[in-house]
Parts: sequence; structure tokens; C-alpha cells
Amino acid sequence: MKPKAFQDYYPEELSHCYGCGKNNKHGHQLKSYWKESTDKAKPLQTIATYTPEKMYTAIPGFVYGGLIASLIDCHGTGSAAAIAYQSSGREMDTLPSLRFVTGGLNVRYLAPTPQNTELTLIGTFTEIKERKVVVSIEVFSHDTLCATGEVIAVLMPKNMMPK
Amino acid sequence: MKPKAFQDYYPEELSHCYGCGKNNKHGHQLKSYWKESTDKAKPLQTIATYTPEKMYTAIPGFVYGGLIASLIDCHGTGSAAAIAYQSSGREMDTLPSLRFVTGGLNVRYLAPTPQNTELTLIGTFTEIKERKVVVSIEVFSHDTLCATGEVIAVLMPKNMMPK
Repeated sequence: MKPKAFQDYYPEELSHCYGCGKNNKHGHQLKSYWKESTDKAKPLQTIATYTPEKMYTAIPGFVYGGLIASLIDCHGTGSAAAIAYQSSGREMDTLPSLRFVTGGLNVRYLAPTPQNTELTLIGTFTEIKERKVVVSIEVFSHDTLCATGEVIAVLMPKNMMPK
Repeated sequence: MKPKAFQDYYPEELSHCYGCGKNNKHGHQLKSYWKESTDKAKPLQTIATYTPEKMYTAIPGFVYGGLIASLIDCHGTGSAAAIAYQSSGREMDTLPSLRFVTGGLNVRYLAPTPQNTELTLIGTFTEIKERKVVVSIEVFSHDTLCATGEVIAVLMPKNMMPK
């Protein structure tokens, strides 16, 4: 059985994100998971895959950089939530919700990203604090590293909570 | 008469970008212009405005960070093209086209960005070279500075040119 994605544990009222909310029918609905590894020496990693629709074009034939930034963003905040629950010894479906938002996002575009292929995002944690998690992300098209990103994720401030 | 936007000078075959291409009917079609100023001491600046559709949600009530990154990206590459033409003493409708793509994108989210309001992006140039332009961008909702960004724009490599 496939595990449940990090984003699918978000509370219903916090699941409208265009990038990853299961309740946003127009959006990307990105799904992030723990990356399985049998190598204990390897760092804890997360993974998401996504095949962009054709409209998300930059130059014809290549994926729009804004979409790549968006995928990095949502994989980063999802990964941050997952590690925060794990660090506090809690299951992801327990309240209060640990939902992270983006404080900073840095993306480097290394190679033009071809359309019509599945992209794979791999996340690695570079800083883990209670209210701040930094996730380093690589975006691959097959074996080509197309972009790298860093997401500085912060625990969602109370003034963003839906009324 | 309203001046023509930077992006509307892009050649037809390079006008499909989801963020700013006039030929992408699904996209944002961001339009960037020179910011008028009567103060000669002020640096040369560019401006774009955009009111996000409701589907571009982060948490309900607030604009999705990936959209803000996208707007910064396209305002940056558009501004880069404009200053490149100006620096070489050419009009923007002359060939060969000076089309820039994004090498790096750094965004800081400073305040939750409310939905249903027009956003204003102001661009300032921090580096201008023939093949590389760096644009610093501020994103305002009314008087609130919601985000800042830096776009490292590079002249489009030949291998991205549509066949």
C-alpha cells in the first residue's frame, strides 16, 4: 500500500495551496513522501514526482521556471512538516497541526528542463529547529540535474490561520 | 497612449511563457514597463501590476508563494531584456532578440500577501552586463512590502531557441 503523502495529512482548512493542496482542484497537488533507503549512512531524504502540463511553458519545449520554483517550495514546506512531526515524536495526523510556510526560497536553474517528462524532487534537511527547517532540494529530469533549491520553511504564524 | 509592455516585444515564438507570454492563454500574462519618475537622481526602475486569481491560494485568504516567485521571475527577465536593449542603444522590436532566462531566483517572504488586492512589483538593477543582468524586486500590496526578490537573468542560450 502506498503511504499517505505529507500534504494529505494537512488539515482540510489548510489544504487549498495551489502547489500542493488536495482541495485545490486547479493546482498541482504535489505529493511528497519519505525516500526509502536501505543505506543507514545516508541522510534522511524526501521525494516527490511531477509531470508538468504543457501550458507550464517557458520557451516552447521547456518547463516554466516559476513552476519549478513552486514545486521546490511545496516539497520544501511539506518535508519541513514531516521532519517536524518526526522530531517531536508525533504522527502527522495529530493536532495541533505543524504546518510550515515559506520564509525564503532560493533556486538555481542549471539546465533547461524538458517538457513531457516526469520531474523528481529530492529533499535533504540542512537545518532542523522547532520553528524553522531548511530543506535543500534537487530537481531531476531523468538523470539530469535541472535545478537546485533551498527552502527556508517557518512554522505558520497564527495570523495566517483561516478564521 | 499606454506604452507597450516589455514582454509584448518578445518574438512570437518566444512569447509562450506561463508567467508573461502573450501567446499563453492559460498564463498570467504579466506586463512590465519603465517606471516613470521626474526625479533624475532616482535609479532607473521598472514596474508591473497583477491581481492574482483566487485559485492561486496558499492558506485561504493569502496568495500562493509560488505565484509571487513567478511574478518576480518574469518581471526580472522582462526588465533584464529592457535594460539590455537600452544599454546597447537598440529599440526592443529589433533583431536579434535579447531574451533573458533565469539563472537564479531568490525570494524572501516578509508578510502574508492578502488575496483580492492588486500587487505592484518594482524592479531596480543591481548589475548590468551584456549576458547577465541582476534585478532586485520589491512586491507590494498597497503600502505593505510583502516580498523581495532577486533575479539573476542570463541571455537565453542558443540551445533553448525553438526549432
